[in-house]
Amino acid sequence: MRYNFAAVHKAILAVVLAIAAAAAAQPARRAVSLVVIGGTVVTENAAHRVLTPGALAINGTDIIDVDRPDVIAGRYTAAETIDARDQIVLPGLINTHTHAPMVMFRGLADDLRLMDWLQKYIFPVEAKTVSAELVRIGTRLAALEMIQSGTTTYTDMYYFEEEIARATREAGLRGVLGETIIQLPAPDAKTPAEGLARAERFIKAFKGDSLIVPAVAPHALYTNDKTTLVASAELGRRYGVPVIIHLAETEDEVRMARDRYHATPVGYLESIGFWGPRTLAAHGIWVTDEDIQVLKRRGVGVAHNPESNMKLASGTAPVRKYLAAGVALGLGTDGAASNNDLDMFEAMRQAAFLAKLATRDPTAIPAQTALDMATTGGAKALGMDRLIGSLEAGKRADVITVSMSAARQTPLYDAVSHLVYVTRGDDVRTTIVNGKVLMKDRQVRTLDARAVIADANRLSQKVREAVKR
Amino acid sequence: MRYNFAAVHKAILAVVLAIAAAAAAQPARRAVSLVVIGGTVVTENAAHRVLTPGALAINGTDIIDVDRPDVIAGRYTAAETIDARDQIVLPGLINTHTHAPMVMFRGLADDLRLMDWLQKYIFPVEAKTVSAELVRIGTRLAALEMIQSGTTTYTDMYYFEEEIARATREAGLRGVLGETIIQLPAPDAKTPAEGLARAERFIKAFKGDSLIVPAVAPHALYTNDKTTLVASAELGRRYGVPVIIHLAETEDEVRMARDRYHATPVGYLESIGFWGPRTLAAHGIWVTDEDIQVLKRRGVGVAHNPESNMKLASGTAPVRKYLAAGVALGLGTDGAASNNDLDMFEAMRQAAFLAKLATRDPTAIPAQTALDMATTGGAKALGMDRLIGSLEAGKRADVITVSMSAARQTPLYDAVSHLVYVTRGDDVRTTIVNGKVLMKDRQVRTLDARAVIADANRLSQKVREAVKR
Repeated sequence: MRYNFAAVHKAILAVVLAIAAAAAAQPARRAVSLVVIGGTVVTENAAHRVLTPGALAINGTDIIDVDRPDVIAGRYTAAETIDARDQIVLPGLINTHTHAPMVMFRGLADDLRLMDWLQKYIFPVEAKTVSAELVRIGTRLAALEMIQSGTTTYTDMYYFEEEIARATREAGLRGVLGETIIQLPAPDAKTPAEGLARAERFIKAFKGDSLIVPAVAPHALYTNDKTTLVASAELGRRYGVPVIIHLAETEDEVRMARDRYHATPVGYLESIGFWGPRTLAAHGIWVTDEDIQVLKRRGVGVAHNPESNMKLASGTAPVRKYLAAGVALGLGTDGAASNNDLDMFEAMRQAAFLAKLATRDPTAIPAQTALDMATTGGAKALGMDRLIGSLEAGKRADVITVSMSAARQTPLYDAVSHLVYVTRGDDVRTTIVNGKVLMKDRQVRTLDARAVIADANRLSQKVREAVKR
Repeated sequence: MRYNFAAVHKAILAVVLAIAAAAAAQPARRAVSLVVIGGTVVTENAAHRVLTPGALAINGTDIIDVDRPDVIAGRYTAAETIDARDQIVLPGLINTHTHAPMVMFRGLADDLRLMDWLQKYIFPVEAKTVSAELVRIGTRLAALEMIQSGTTTYTDMYYFEEEIARATREAGLRGVLGETIIQLPAPDAKTPAEGLARAERFIKAFKGDSLIVPAVAPHALYTNDKTTLVASAELGRRYGVPVIIHLAETEDEVRMARDRYHATPVGYLESIGFWGPRTLAAHGIWVTDEDIQVLKRRGVGVAHNPESNMKLASGTAPVRKYLAAGVALGLGTDGAASNNDLDMFEAMRQAAFLAKLATRDPTAIPAQTALDMATTGGAKALGMDRLIGSLEAGKRADVITVSMSAARQTPLYDAVSHLVYVTRGDDVRTTIVNGKVLMKDRQVRTLDARAVIADANRLSQKVREAVKR
């Protein structure tokens, strides 16, 4: 066979011209900071759109585009690309209730009655050990665990909240952080008035921060009097920040409210004008149908903590009723002293399991609803659903990628089922908050994992000694 | 400075002689196949002895010594040493109820009512897809997941059980494997008589195997008539092998038994002479106090499956009552189609959580009891407690090591608490069965993990198509 060189050259020239024409026809690609290409993108938008495959373009702090990988590749050039082609991309998980530094007390005392646990272990050990240092070291450890397990926003209630805010900001996480107000002498305030003053300084210092939403957190109805509860709500309203409270966690709390105030906890707090659209109630287990209507009417968000509620035998929150009433319902882990970890995948699984058992109906809280609670539900409960909770252009880029190729994830018929029923925090590969990559291929960039763990281990010796005494 | 060579030589000679004398005084070290040196050894012996640190000597199939690392090092030289000095060493976990090949159906259909789930998905898909090939590929995938998550013995009920036995033996796991007998046409037998003949051939083929305990598994009271139930029990007795049955899983089963037999499921099975010391009942949720006494009197083992029972909304087994009555109680995951994984660490956690919630008592099923159920309890339920379930000289070397240094496991105050409340299967580093190392540093030696997963993914296409039709 002989080649016709002239014909071959002509053909090559035609190809080259076609490529040049195509390049000219394509608009210039926009430079962005980050592109994430996923095998599956679970957007959690209103239509529950899932792209298989899908991709995101992120610029600065925001998601600017969600589409097919070829479309995103055609539109953007990225400073950094996350290749998650065998993974699932989803919104970062939102933990609506925890006490971050209490990771320092995890597994210290389990399987005890709530009052024994609090009075013999947690309160005395807290009194002896909670300091700015413990809070700082504990928050770093909690932040490491949260980044490693795909939580991008968390809600906190503890002491020395400014330390928590600083450590959270350094770690790059988003936090709704409430300085605790309690009637008893606290590690960082002798009186509630001192606590309120502390909370006000804290709010002023962090209001407007791009990652931290400062908040005030009156501990509970049973640990604060009316004056303190009202003053806390007032403080929140004055600064337009969230007010966070433990609500109706135990039957004892309901009994106390009935004895003292002749009302349910929700009813009493309603009677003193406590509730508002920025209030967030943790637990909300022992509530009446009327209570649920009050919470709905006032726009209160509720944080459901299935693991803590089971481990402490507190009871079962009426999750289906909340959802039916349209109450904004998020998921939380509670503090690691009563869980004992901060893994939101376990919280999702447990929310589904617990609701099914409690209602004796296996269709209760299907996987999709559990995932909604950990993403859009949490965002709504925090009043932040315009910013976070789903992968949509214009929202903050809080994104995680999750590997889906372990033996226990094989075969893969349904991404949402697998996310809820067989996935753990350890499967998270990438964690992005506010457009910044905090973890890639499980390497955390914002914290020195070894140093964080070593510091916590060193400090744990103090905790051990405090229990002995 | 000048050396006095004569003095130095004399001193060196003295040291050499002292070493030689010490060596002569020490008895010769015994050569063994394997030594495991752990940071903490949780023996699960009768005294719940924990050695911190501790070590095991294994020779051939058996544990021959458990003691301090220096003592073990002084007594033995080992062909292979597992260094688990920053880990916890514990008995391999015993899964007392699963259907291994059903990993092929995990996440295929969730959040459905039991009868919808069975009749619209599981039964039709099984009818179309269950073959010797699916069972073989599914069992390999399940075995991979079990080895990776620290299960060393498992109990199975499915079809083509000889395929399961072969795949289990190849993977190196210990299995109590029951050929299912069911009144309806099954994938491997058109009639119960055919199933019984199959079961007998299976028992003959595997009786006396060092890893496989063959068994007969009449599916349930509601899926078999009296003749089949009696014949199954007879077959088990004739060969001295376990008889495994689903028992009182749903209220419907109890209603059916009352309507048809005017008895509880336990009571009816007692009346036909079904129960014996080698019978194992899975679930046992809807039982009366009298039923529990019958099970205790007959020496029946019970397999508790908290995750499946929650996910399918079946109910809550009276775990505390079983333990109080002295019934041998093990833990199970159930099949992956109703869990959706085979992680026994999650089963332990869920057993503790569920019991606390159900009894409204946070002291119910403390971490130690949950761990006992997954080890010694399971061994007793299977009638194998002289062989497995604890780390003691003379028992088979079924051992796992678990890493304990993740952020979520920091700090470490209590090894048993952490094993139950913050540890997952993925933390297992080493899995040893019958003295053989099946996994070391998460590298599985007996299965080609990539090939197993690839085979399952290929076959999953058939399952997908069967659902569509």
